[in-house]
Amino acid sequence: MNVLVVGANGQIGKQLVAKIQHRNGLQAKAMIRKQEQSSYFKELGAEPIIVDLEDDVKAIERAVHGVDAVVFTAGSGPNTGKDKTILIDLDGAVKTIEATKLAGVKRFVMVSSFDTTREAIQASSPSFSPYVVAKHYADEWLKRTELAYTIIHPGRLTNDIGVGRVEIGEKVERGEIPREDVAEVILQSLQNKKTIGKEFQIVTGSQPINEAIDSL
Amino acid sequence: MNVLVVGANGQIGKQLVAKIQHRNGLQAKAMIRKQEQSSYFKELGAEPIIVDLEDDVKAIERAVHGVDAVVFTAGSGPNTGKDKTILIDLDGAVKTIEATKLAGVKRFVMVSSFDTTREAIQASSPSFSPYVVAKHYADEWLKRTELAYTIIHPGRLTNDIGVGRVEIGEKVERGEIPREDVAEVILQSLQNKKTIGKEFQIVTGSQPINEAIDSL
Repeated sequence: MNVLVVGANGQIGKQLVAKIQHRNGLQAKAMIRKQEQSSYFKELGAEPIIVDLEDDVKAIERAVHGVDAVVFTAGSGPNTGKDKTILIDLDGAVKTIEATKLAGVKRFVMVSSFDTTREAIQASSPSFSPYVVAKHYADEWLKRTELAYTIIHPGRLTNDIGVGRVEIGEKVERGEIPREDVAEVILQSLQNKKTIGKEFQIVTGSQPINEAIDSL
Repeated sequence: MNVLVVGANGQIGKQLVAKIQHRNGLQAKAMIRKQEQSSYFKELGAEPIIVDLEDDVKAIERAVHGVDAVVFTAGSGPNTGKDKTILIDLDGAVKTIEATKLAGVKRFVMVSSFDTTREAIQASSPSFSPYVVAKHYADEWLKRTELAYTIIHPGRLTNDIGVGRVEIGEKVERGEIPREDVAEVILQSLQNKKTIGKEFQIVTGSQPINEAIDSL
């Protein structure tokens, strides 16, 4: 399986590409913004492709072309300018979804925010709510497509070493999760059809990742 | 016909409420953010209702309740903070659409931007494109509902006195249009069923507004 990782140069993206490259039968294509980001991916044996999420759908479609699945883990982050929030987290995501459809690729894994419901928008602080709105509409857009989607809602991300154990569900208690574990959850979601058409929250817990995902 | 004007205190909104109040058989409900904005509307005989577009759908539904049509002409404007662009121009619009559905009201007139296509997003300057993205998704959301919608795409807005003559069409040459004429176009759209399920660009031209709208 050939997987396009959109946002490959992000903290989750880098770990995901490494995991993909170390797994038999999987191959990563790393969508990055700048030529100078490519060496990390080349060293892993992954194929870097330079496309900016502010480019048009056609440009993104060229990156999607020929892969079996797309993972969207790009993010302007909640602390960038709010112009980037709408251009990357919302419009960049939707363009990637549209490019995936155009390229005839069916499988799409979205890395979302912990809670992107309308209730979460209203409950968010003024500085965070634009990010939640952007993620809300990106998720909504994806759910209204015919794509074989999975939407992952991780808890507060940390840079801790992965523990490989999680709590998973439509609704779980707010908590933390290492980015490394999120990368593993993405990888296993790609390989488990039970995740298709589903969205789930995930935080560190007591269940091994493979069992947790298999319980969906 | 009782019409809720969302964004009543804006430059188009104020003229629209006045026009509605001066027309036989029409009555305006003016949705505004602050108590101190209400005197203008009371003097016109319109009913002011205080709801903030950052409130939840339920709050907006209370404003929609009992009217026959909703006009969305609120806007953070292209020059406010980009957080307001996503919270008002996108999420405020979608919440108003959802509130309209919940209240069982069918008619919805959206005042959009001149060109909200994907091509227009790509062609926009970096400072303007977040606004176009927000309007794009609000329009898309509306088109995917069962509401009897009209989407009006006015050219560059001026404060000139209305001339009452326009050019109208799916695609017209870029140009200007006085806000007063936009208000008149909204009013006549509300009263002409030919505008239902349609969107059109409008700039100053040679055709009387009523004939132009009737030609749709």
